[in-house]
Amino acid sequence: MPHQISPEMRECIANCTECHTVCVETAAHCLELGGKHAEAHHIHVLLDCAQICATSADFMLRGSELHGRTCGVCAEACSRCAEDCERLADGDETMLRCAEVCRRCADSCRRMAA
Amino acid sequence: MPHQISPEMRECIANCTECHTVCVETAAHCLELGGKHAEAHHIHVLLDCAQICATSADFMLRGSELHGRTCGVCAEACSRCAEDCERLADGDETMLRCAEVCRRCADSCRRMAA
Amino acid sequence: MPHQISPEMRECIANCTECHTVCVETAAHCLELGGKHAEAHHIHVLLDCAQICATSADFMLRGSELHGRTCGVCAEACSRCAEDCERLADGDETMLRCAEVCRRCADSCRRMAA
Amino acid sequence: MPHQISPEMRECIANCTECHTVCVETAAHCLELGGKHAEAHHIHVLLDCAQICATSADFMLRGSELHGRTCGVCAEACSRCAEDCERLADGDETMLRCAEVCRRCADSCRRMAA
Repeated sequence: MPHQISPEMRECIANCTECHTVCVETAAHCLELGGKHAEAHHIHVLLDCAQICATSADFMLRGSELHGRTCGVCAEACSRCAEDCERLADGDETMLRCAEVCRRCADSCRRMAA
Repeated sequence: MPHQISPEMRECIANCTECHTVCVETAAHCLELGGKHAEAHHIHVLLDCAQICATSADFMLRGSELHGRTCGVCAEACSRCAEDCERLADGDETMLRCAEVCRRCADSCRRMAA
Repeated sequence: MPHQISPEMRECIANCTECHTVCVETAAHCLELGGKHAEAHHIHVLLDCAQICATSADFMLRGSELHGRTCGVCAEACSRCAEDCERLADGDETMLRCAEVCRRCADSCRRMAA
Repeated sequence: MPHQISPEMRECIANCTECHTVCVETAAHCLELGGKHAEAHHIHVLLDCAQICATSADFMLRGSELHGRTCGVCAEACSRCAEDCERLADGDETMLRCAEVCRRCADSCRRMAA
């Protein structure tokens, strides 16, 4: 019998997928803004978050036993990305939206990791 | 000035993202069904489609000059995946839904590639 | 000043990269062998290992602060993959080689995670 | 019977894998150097090249029918990345090495695409 994806996991997959998308777009946006927005640390935090979100989503879609572990790392990466976006946003709407999406994803990944 | 993502490209990104998700889930589903659903060629077609969809979506999100090229390959991978899912579905709803999502993604990638 | 990648991290990156390659190839091989080699759980263990190896390697290449966390999950995924390959190998050389590469990668990821 | 990977394809997989690694590391390096090295276009060219190299390698490892198409796009991405690294290198060894690895990968992908 194929595994069933629970509604809570389904929501976490959607959050990770959205967070991946927003982080890749925000990294491009920040590189184009330049200055402090494009500092290496910030871009790396965004790329880390994008990549672990995609990985965690795929682990959940496969019903993998280790999805709780990937979600745990993902929650941490999302929290750090949210903080860094808020720290540097200076009113920039793309960065503030990224922070919001990251916080939501961190919350649902934390629940999946528990 | 940061690049703008056009509404048509935004829609194609959403289609690729959905298609990636559905293909990873369908590959897991087919492996669990076993038999002809799990034949190597079919699983590979699903994994190819999932991977090039994710790649094309990221190229568009970065505003990359080569996004038309990745979308061209993606359209072809999605068409093949849709055909293979229909060929093997035998009424299975997950596979039929995958075929539908792949066709929609193939159409929008074909437009982006033009 | 650009970050320096230590010799130990450089070796771990090489191990993760090789392990990714071997797991993707072994998954294709097992799907083509069919039977118990192609059971859903085994293919998922291989795909999980391939994906987290690629993710961990990229985190190390970026010098990301969270690379210890991704390496921790990677060590666990590699150990499980090695066990599963040995359990099912039945003398198959591709699977035995995969088990060996996974064990080496698990060891170096465990050291990076510490 | 499992598919056989030809020696030429095996070499192309190795080139794509190395090129992925070098491009991710060079992108991190360039972001840390800052200035013209960190301009959005250059970082995107490096990230594009890294991602399509990883995708093409996996297509070849799966023995996918579309590997010639992904190798074709990969050859183009590698050529552009080599040119951009040379244009901006200004004697930087990491960037010059990246250009060299990209050219070698472009050559072997071009042959696989033919």
